[in-house]
Amino acid sequence: MKIAYLNADFYTMDMDNHIFKNGMMIVDDQKISYIGPSSADLLSDADQVVDLRGKWVLPGLVNVHSHILMTILRGNGDDMLLKPWLETKIWPIEAKFTTEIASVSAQLGMLEMLKSGTTTFSDMFNPNGIDADVVMEVIGETGMRGAFSYSIFSFGTEQEQKANLTGAERFSKTYKTYANGRLTAMVAPHSPYACTPEAIAESARIAKENDLMVHIHVSETDFEVLDIEKRYGVRPVEFLRRLGLFDQPTVMAHGVVLNDEERSILKQYDVRVAHNPISNLKLGSGIADVVSLLDKGIKVGIATDGVASNNNFDMFEETRTAALLQKGVYKDATKFTAQTALSLATRVGAEAIGMGYTGSLEAGKKADFLTIYPYDKAHLQPLSEAYSHLLYAASGRDVCDVYIDGKLIVKDGNCLTIDEEKVMAEVNRLHADLTR
Amino acid sequence: MKIAYLNADFYTMDMDNHIFKNGMMIVDDQKISYIGPSSADLLSDADQVVDLRGKWVLPGLVNVHSHILMTILRGNGDDMLLKPWLETKIWPIEAKFTTEIASVSAQLGMLEMLKSGTTTFSDMFNPNGIDADVVMEVIGETGMRGAFSYSIFSFGTEQEQKANLTGAERFSKTYKTYANGRLTAMVAPHSPYACTPEAIAESARIAKENDLMVHIHVSETDFEVLDIEKRYGVRPVEFLRRLGLFDQPTVMAHGVVLNDEERSILKQYDVRVAHNPISNLKLGSGIADVVSLLDKGIKVGIATDGVASNNNFDMFEETRTAALLQKGVYKDATKFTAQTALSLATRVGAEAIGMGYTGSLEAGKKADFLTIYPYDKAHLQPLSEAYSHLLYAASGRDVCDVYIDGKLIVKDGNCLTIDEEKVMAEVNRLHADLTR
Repeated sequence: MKIAYLNADFYTMDMDNHIFKNGMMIVDDQKISYIGPSSADLLSDADQVVDLRGKWVLPGLVNVHSHILMTILRGNGDDMLLKPWLETKIWPIEAKFTTEIASVSAQLGMLEMLKSGTTTFSDMFNPNGIDADVVMEVIGETGMRGAFSYSIFSFGTEQEQKANLTGAERFSKTYKTYANGRLTAMVAPHSPYACTPEAIAESARIAKENDLMVHIHVSETDFEVLDIEKRYGVRPVEFLRRLGLFDQPTVMAHGVVLNDEERSILKQYDVRVAHNPISNLKLGSGIADVVSLLDKGIKVGIATDGVASNNNFDMFEETRTAALLQKGVYKDATKFTAQTALSLATRVGAEAIGMGYTGSLEAGKKADFLTIYPYDKAHLQPLSEAYSHLLYAASGRDVCDVYIDGKLIVKDGNCLTIDEEKVMAEVNRLHADLTR
Repeated sequence: MKIAYLNADFYTMDMDNHIFKNGMMIVDDQKISYIGPSSADLLSDADQVVDLRGKWVLPGLVNVHSHILMTILRGNGDDMLLKPWLETKIWPIEAKFTTEIASVSAQLGMLEMLKSGTTTFSDMFNPNGIDADVVMEVIGETGMRGAFSYSIFSFGTEQEQKANLTGAERFSKTYKTYANGRLTAMVAPHSPYACTPEAIAESARIAKENDLMVHIHVSETDFEVLDIEKRYGVRPVEFLRRLGLFDQPTVMAHGVVLNDEERSILKQYDVRVAHNPISNLKLGSGIADVVSLLDKGIKVGIATDGVASNNNFDMFEETRTAALLQKGVYKDATKFTAQTALSLATRVGAEAIGMGYTGSLEAGKKADFLTIYPYDKAHLQPLSEAYSHLLYAASGRDVCDVYIDGKLIVKDGNCLTIDEEKVMAEVNRLHADLTR
């Protein structure tokens, strides 16, 4: 079935940054079959017409590193450093997680993501105490696109570590393709500091045997780099390289503490970086040198991390912060333009997580997009500077409609696939139990 | 008339950071006469009761440095350095400003400020080509509280410079107290680089003779500091001190490039700093060392600057960015806590601009406050971590009601004192003319 979307300004975020003011987009089932100027011929051929009357249309945003199962922990332990925060606030409370908590927390996270225009995400979860199959089913029902990664940790007894690896391998095989191909899995050794070399090597094996991407936290803090150097005599990037982890396409979250030699290794192995500017600031980790990563030709996507260190999933705010930080640190306003920033939050981010079939509005790509209705929003005036406003003034709260695979998921700000009221009530009930 | 506000959580932002969950506030005419736990006695004495059913109440936010007359220039010249941006994008287009453009632009700015919870602002405007009396009347009608400063520039012929100073002096005298005391004026030499020493000295005289505060841009960029050093042999702070500018209480916008000696001078003269984190990043100016300012005991307020370098007036986002930046730059998440950040955006900011009678919810203070209804907002769950969410997760778009002087100005997100639709339509019409 061909649906024609009309009377909107389409910001395609394709390689040439095409913009079609008052343009037209045809969606044939799940894919875009045409985007460009309005065409009477194509219109007459459409089965259905949707009038987007003055809206701005942008590809759905791509959040390349999140932890949706932790959404219930928003606001838990602010103003703390990463290590004590994880060890005294996050991990002890995660140890009390149940499948119910995980499922509701995931729904709250996806509800927020969807309502703020994120259509694709790549998430890493702590599987302890939860039934990952139930959670995956919950995620599938929301209609979101993404990758879900079962964390591999070298904690506990030898038996527990073995069970963790077995669980990760089973999960990876089971969810390589799921929910009509919208969902996939990655292999996720948590980090160089939370995994033994054996666990990293095993992760590399699982990824290779199942042809899956790798998702890992690397070089987030000075402390981590010193710690790994002390333990193994090399910095984290070289530590992982030697263990063969980068032999499969890898997304590395953070990359705050990198030197030029390490950036060369990342480029050589086509390792992609998930840049989490707000979380890195909030936890006192620092500011990643994204300009140098891009200059090297490394693919960078924008990410929120979990909301316990953010504390929201607003990709508009995250992308703006990414751009602002590079300008400020380099003391050069010409660095990291609006076009660069928006492309990382969409097309480049999708490519970084192996989903180049989404992330821009182009014929042949998945019909994943969002709309904004600017006419009643003071902060989006004057209207003629829309492209600037999309990066520098807009917020996730401005999103009107969200489509994934051509299907309407958020309509006029309301999520059609998640029972908002129920999820919020359950989150508050479960949070009260958890913190009692 | 005594109005009792009930059933809300009151985040007072007073010195002791009192929070009254399910508390009560009594407003007697324009002032708060009681805030604390619910009291049946006080309630029975009230003339009217307003049920705030589950809302969060925060003092109205205080934006200590803005340029509302430039709001129509939002999105004009992104990704440019300060100097070429001012010289090729901002000043040439400001030269075409009319009173109509200035008035509509001001209304758009205040509309956005009010809807996002800002009740008090301190603004600096370029008076060229406009009738400031008309603009001041427009500002007065919105119900906002604030200070408006007529910029003093040493541009043009000697006669033009003299007329500019005469205009500033007349404006300062006329608007020292205006709109039932809600509005005042400050004396505003634009900056060390745009004013001659004579203009600075004249500004100091006008401020002293009329007992007004001074508002000025200082030490915004490395370039400015080098330029002033080259011209006068001293850095900007010492340059201004010698000219007697700091003899009246002064608010200095930016303070990005300061050394410890300069911070000592600022403390000695009780100079206050308007911190504009997003504008400083966006223009590539850098990151002000706010922690050192606060350690020195200097009063710091949070500010957006104009939206042409921001590009919105969202004080929630601005305050969050201020906190995040200090944590990131210091690589210490314990710096600049939520409480510090929120106090600068409210009580301390109000004190910085000489309006200590607002900025916190305390008996005797002006009844300037905002409400947020969190129950239908995914990004504000779990509800029990509200204090954290106010800084780390909320947005200006979450604001429900805004009161100034006890008067309802924004109700359920709609501004009662500005014709929103009309202002937005006019902005777009005038912007099209201006950029044709």
